[in-house]
Amino acid sequence: MQEQPVRVAQIGYGYWGPNLARNFHQLPQAALVAVVDARPQALEKAASLYPQIHTTTDFREVLADESIQAVAISTPARTHYDLAKAGLEAGKHVFVEKPLAMDLGQAQELVALAQERGRILMVGHVFEYNPAVRHIKTMLDRGELGEIFYLYSRRVNLGRVQSDINALWSIAPHDVSIALYLLERMPLAVSCQGAACLNGRVEDVIFLTLYFPEDVLSHVHASWLDPSKQRETIVVGSKKMVVYDDVSTEGKIRIYDKGVYRKGDPIYGEFQYKVHSGDILIPRLDMMEPLRNELSDFVDAIRQGRAPLTDGYNGLRVVSVLAAGQLSLDRGGEKVTLQEVLERHRLDPGWLFPSPNP
Amino acid sequence: MQEQPVRVAQIGYGYWGPNLARNFHQLPQAALVAVVDARPQALEKAASLYPQIHTTTDFREVLADESIQAVAISTPARTHYDLAKAGLEAGKHVFVEKPLAMDLGQAQELVALAQERGRILMVGHVFEYNPAVRHIKTMLDRGELGEIFYLYSRRVNLGRVQSDINALWSIAPHDVSIALYLLERMPLAVSCQGAACLNGRVEDVIFLTLYFPEDVLSHVHASWLDPSKQRETIVVGSKKMVVYDDVSTEGKIRIYDKGVYRKGDPIYGEFQYKVHSGDILIPRLDMMEPLRNELSDFVDAIRQGRAPLTDGYNGLRVVSVLAAGQLSLDRGGEKVTLQEVLERHRLDPGWLFPSPNP
Amino acid sequence: MQEQPVRVAQIGYGYWGPNLARNFHQLPQAALVAVVDARPQALEKAASLYPQIHTTTDFREVLADESIQAVAISTPARTHYDLAKAGLEAGKHVFVEKPLAMDLGQAQELVALAQERGRILMVGHVFEYNPAVRHIKTMLDRGELGEIFYLYSRRVNLGRVQSDINALWSIAPHDVSIALYLLERMPLAVSCQGAACLNGRVEDVIFLTLYFPEDVLSHVHASWLDPSKQRETIVVGSKKMVVYDDVSTEGKIRIYDKGVYRKGDPIYGEFQYKVHSGDILIPRLDMMEPLRNELSDFVDAIRQGRAPLTDGYNGLRVVSVLAAGQLSLDRGGEKVTLQEVLERHRLDPGWLFPSPNP
Amino acid sequence: MQEQPVRVAQIGYGYWGPNLARNFHQLPQAALVAVVDARPQALEKAASLYPQIHTTTDFREVLADESIQAVAISTPARTHYDLAKAGLEAGKHVFVEKPLAMDLGQAQELVALAQERGRILMVGHVFEYNPAVRHIKTMLDRGELGEIFYLYSRRVNLGRVQSDINALWSIAPHDVSIALYLLERMPLAVSCQGAACLNGRVEDVIFLTLYFPEDVLSHVHASWLDPSKQRETIVVGSKKMVVYDDVSTEGKIRIYDKGVYRKGDPIYGEFQYKVHSGDILIPRLDMMEPLRNELSDFVDAIRQGRAPLTDGYNGLRVVSVLAAGQLSLDRGGEKVTLQEVLERHRLDPGWLFPSPNP
Repeated sequence: MQEQPVRVAQIGYGYWGPNLARNFHQLPQAALVAVVDARPQALEKAASLYPQIHTTTDFREVLADESIQAVAISTPARTHYDLAKAGLEAGKHVFVEKPLAMDLGQAQELVALAQERGRILMVGHVFEYNPAVRHIKTMLDRGELGEIFYLYSRRVNLGRVQSDINALWSIAPHDVSIALYLLERMPLAVSCQGAACLNGRVEDVIFLTLYFPEDVLSHVHASWLDPSKQRETIVVGSKKMVVYDDVSTEGKIRIYDKGVYRKGDPIYGEFQYKVHSGDILIPRLDMMEPLRNELSDFVDAIRQGRAPLTDGYNGLRVVSVLAAGQLSLDRGGEKVTLQEVLERHRLDPGWLFPSPNP
Repeated sequence: MQEQPVRVAQIGYGYWGPNLARNFHQLPQAALVAVVDARPQALEKAASLYPQIHTTTDFREVLADESIQAVAISTPARTHYDLAKAGLEAGKHVFVEKPLAMDLGQAQELVALAQERGRILMVGHVFEYNPAVRHIKTMLDRGELGEIFYLYSRRVNLGRVQSDINALWSIAPHDVSIALYLLERMPLAVSCQGAACLNGRVEDVIFLTLYFPEDVLSHVHASWLDPSKQRETIVVGSKKMVVYDDVSTEGKIRIYDKGVYRKGDPIYGEFQYKVHSGDILIPRLDMMEPLRNELSDFVDAIRQGRAPLTDGYNGLRVVSVLAAGQLSLDRGGEKVTLQEVLERHRLDPGWLFPSPNP
Repeated sequence: MQEQPVRVAQIGYGYWGPNLARNFHQLPQAALVAVVDARPQALEKAASLYPQIHTTTDFREVLADESIQAVAISTPARTHYDLAKAGLEAGKHVFVEKPLAMDLGQAQELVALAQERGRILMVGHVFEYNPAVRHIKTMLDRGELGEIFYLYSRRVNLGRVQSDINALWSIAPHDVSIALYLLERMPLAVSCQGAACLNGRVEDVIFLTLYFPEDVLSHVHASWLDPSKQRETIVVGSKKMVVYDDVSTEGKIRIYDKGVYRKGDPIYGEFQYKVHSGDILIPRLDMMEPLRNELSDFVDAIRQGRAPLTDGYNGLRVVSVLAAGQLSLDRGGEKVTLQEVLERHRLDPGWLFPSPNP
Repeated sequence: MQEQPVRVAQIGYGYWGPNLARNFHQLPQAALVAVVDARPQALEKAASLYPQIHTTTDFREVLADESIQAVAISTPARTHYDLAKAGLEAGKHVFVEKPLAMDLGQAQELVALAQERGRILMVGHVFEYNPAVRHIKTMLDRGELGEIFYLYSRRVNLGRVQSDINALWSIAPHDVSIALYLLERMPLAVSCQGAACLNGRVEDVIFLTLYFPEDVLSHVHASWLDPSKQRETIVVGSKKMVVYDDVSTEGKIRIYDKGVYRKGDPIYGEFQYKVHSGDILIPRLDMMEPLRNELSDFVDAIRQGRAPLTDGYNGLRVVSVLAAGQLSLDRGGEKVTLQEVLERHRLDPGWLFPSPNP
């Protein structure tokens, strides 16, 4: 295991990049050594906060600097593939914000490249490091929710209007990542409805349905054209139900001791369904910043030579679902099987699940 | 115009019927004269509250009683068609709870029959009589919301589990009715996703998307398998946005002076989208019980010889959307055009919009 | 034990009386036989709902009717004493709404009279029959909250403006009753601040502090001049804290596993206080209507010849606190001891606690 | 007017001091040049964020440094007087956190000293710089609320347990400052009830009533021993009512178009009070950080040679109310007139209102 802090360059210092930089700066096992951004004003801000680091508008300087082990990419989604590829080819470990790429073929190429070069490729699916999501996962693992019936997310707000990528690629990756993490399965098929309200080309709002095996459904409503900020995921189990409300000020998670059970004679008579309704529990959660957990995993994975939780395969799985969703959108909401998407890109289904560790 | 109160028989005295009966009893322009239900206990309850009325388990007694002008049907949805048809054939005016029928052909038959007999046929789409929905409609009529981008409803709860009809036919009629009322248009196509979690046959949860002309989208999430009661409709306009939260204790409607406007040169440059965010208004609404408004309209329509707001055509429009939704469900979520549904049932599109008054 | 239903006359059929009448009508062990009110319109309403009962504007008819065993008085507070006294003197069991009387001497007289005549005297402190308050009481009895530090209530609204009695006598009796019930102790002293905003004579808003033994404080904020309806009681214990929010739509009670504990060496050093913050529990409560519980206790007490929970002594205790509060108000907020109030009215302190059962 | 940034030393770098330092660092018209704290770890933190500044454990270094024009004191309340006095005597402008001092005589001495030396003395009553409080003040100034009936604040939480100063001096200064700012009057008298739950000496919870002229009441509930964080101020006017909820996530202020008006004949008959209940408005407020507004006022006042809003006189007024509250607490909740407190300290009432500017 490496003793020295991992030397990291932050690529992109706009909306989210400063949060990455701050965490790399604070993590004892990492050292923020450079920030790259095309805009001089962004670099000035970075320099005033971290006077000791190198700032540059030229990504190649970082690639050429052999003392830099890792790059963290937080740039517009359309640039993820090119930058991550350049990073891996220069021998860097690469952290890239979600989505891993805007195209399934490119995502696959990045995963293959990382494996070939023996470098860590990680994607920023930060909710898998969120204490609330983790708490639900633990409950699922222990069977406390019973059988999962369905789950859904709503992630809407007014703002961060995008004119190049739609709400599916911009917002929904969080919810796809949460669903795959919680269910530990890939959907068989996907359908996606959307409306391009503002400019007629880019969907500002989408509704995404994932069809999982055993008739389990997951649904996502994502939009940047909504009156109030809502960030919630509801998981409906046969024994308990959980509401994760990320904007709640008193407890992010409410666990409902509620369910429906069958009553009556299954042979001679009709079943009757009875509702059970018990207490509600708001568990105390760790206050750890999810982003800090995430970036710790990145640098620890580098130091320990292991895969991080949200590795390239994880990113690939999410992109494959988004690609199916996009195909559905393109076809006016038609249901699209994962199978079709994988065949289109000649992607080995074995790559998707389970995650082979490098 | 008729001077005497309209003499009404209430058919079905289970979950919702008592509310209809109470309102008919209280309305000065109506007289509740009989209650019909197959269960003697239900009749006992009715008799103890309204000792002066006739109670019977035999619907035919009511049909045969020429002094009874109108019947109000609040029975399981699968019986709506038969009972409404019998009522109309006996020369009664008929109020029937939503949905008008479980089949588009049957719904059409009822409308034709009412027209032929010169009787009022009305369906209980109670939200079109709700002061909150009316307030939004008035704002739309005045152009206060600007252009409508999209709207969506969530109507979920734990309870009232049905094992014969699914959430589409049981819960979503409210939201379809609201959407058609607000937009004054029919959707071009419909898609519906759902999961039959409990018994594998009947969908406990559905997600319904209506595609309206000009790329306007409406979405409904309906379920009886959710941890907490949510009843909300959000309307997103270009100038303002409205949240109608029916379970809110302080004001059902919040009007957000929020929107997105374009900035920049449409010819040479890219548009930029700016968010405008102003005050929120919670208007005071009339406290009138929607059901009272609705039943007033029924008896007034009878007395005045005019169509009520939610007449048979209105009910037919809602059933045609539900039928398209069911076809989509049956086909695994595929998008289904209204056109196809109308042709299947050889339904004259002219019947759907606008509503010809009898 | 009496086998027949207790025959009850309802005195006063205005704002609250109809709720009493409805419950007496529905309780199997009671029979509503008469309603008295000075206003003919009120009697008409009662008669239309309960055609079989006797209605009259003359209370003496009820007093003279030997078949009537009990009267339930729900009239303006200033008339409670006269009506309850007349009822007891006519040999009736008497239920009277809170407060028992507007004067401590009169309250004492009623209790003595009931004892002398061997009749039940009960006061309508309905929150002692509320499942939420009962739940807190059970937790206190089991020591689950630890040591009680303090508790406070806020009961405010806009409406029900009174111009003859102030918020102390009109609203605060509920909170005084809750505090005495939970703590099972009498306060040593009372202070009360208030403002007569509307007419300069009657306090629309009051702040009442009860000083209990061992430095336990209870505080009440009562007002009919507030923008939104708030009804809450917070109990702060050393181990847990409870919020009872009566207007909450999702669970009336929240139990916080929170507290402050001392750390450090009590001899050599300063204590340090550490905050413990754990889960929040929203327990499922029985849905029983508190008023039904209360009136059941009244008629059961009559049939079983035992004291009800909120008997005359209970009412006397609350009135003694209100009397001290009024004296404090009259003296501009000065602290007033219970001792002084008792001596003023030559009230035997033994009457106050514990409650001697008849 | 001074052209150069005001050179400021931050005294105390514990809980709140870092926020002051950050704002001084960011304000263009100020320069943070030194941080003083007794704890080396605190200084290390400051040095890592602001490498260019001087850090020291010795306050005298700052006093002796003639290039430093101003000191900002954010230390335990018991040290405010000594440190502010030393600062003024060394010729510095002084910003001191609330309360100005723990004793009215000392507060008076500081004001006199500042006046004598011609230096700015300012106290950190930050809510007078809060956009929500400012909005209410503007409404009051315009008469939009009508006549003020009463106002009250609740500022409770679990945490920040103090063992040397009570909740009156630690938490309530905010609410006293808000009340004086909004009403622009001094109370005639004060009463204060409290309980020292944890250590028997220091009140963890207090209820404070301020009696203003014309029967206007203000009430404060302050505690660090409560299950959930509540920070609210409600202002009840004859025309409108305002709720300022500082922990609300959707709008800090709700303006209720609600009131009570008199109806009826004032000569021959009784008045009747009718409730008016209209819309609720949640106005959009500026997002400016109150602390930034406050510290801007401090440095601008220095540069422009004028008094800041929350000058020494303002601080003196708040301390005089707190001193009266403390006297009331010491006397078991007795009502204490401001007159008595002023005479005790031989304080010229003219100093209290209006504020003479230096």
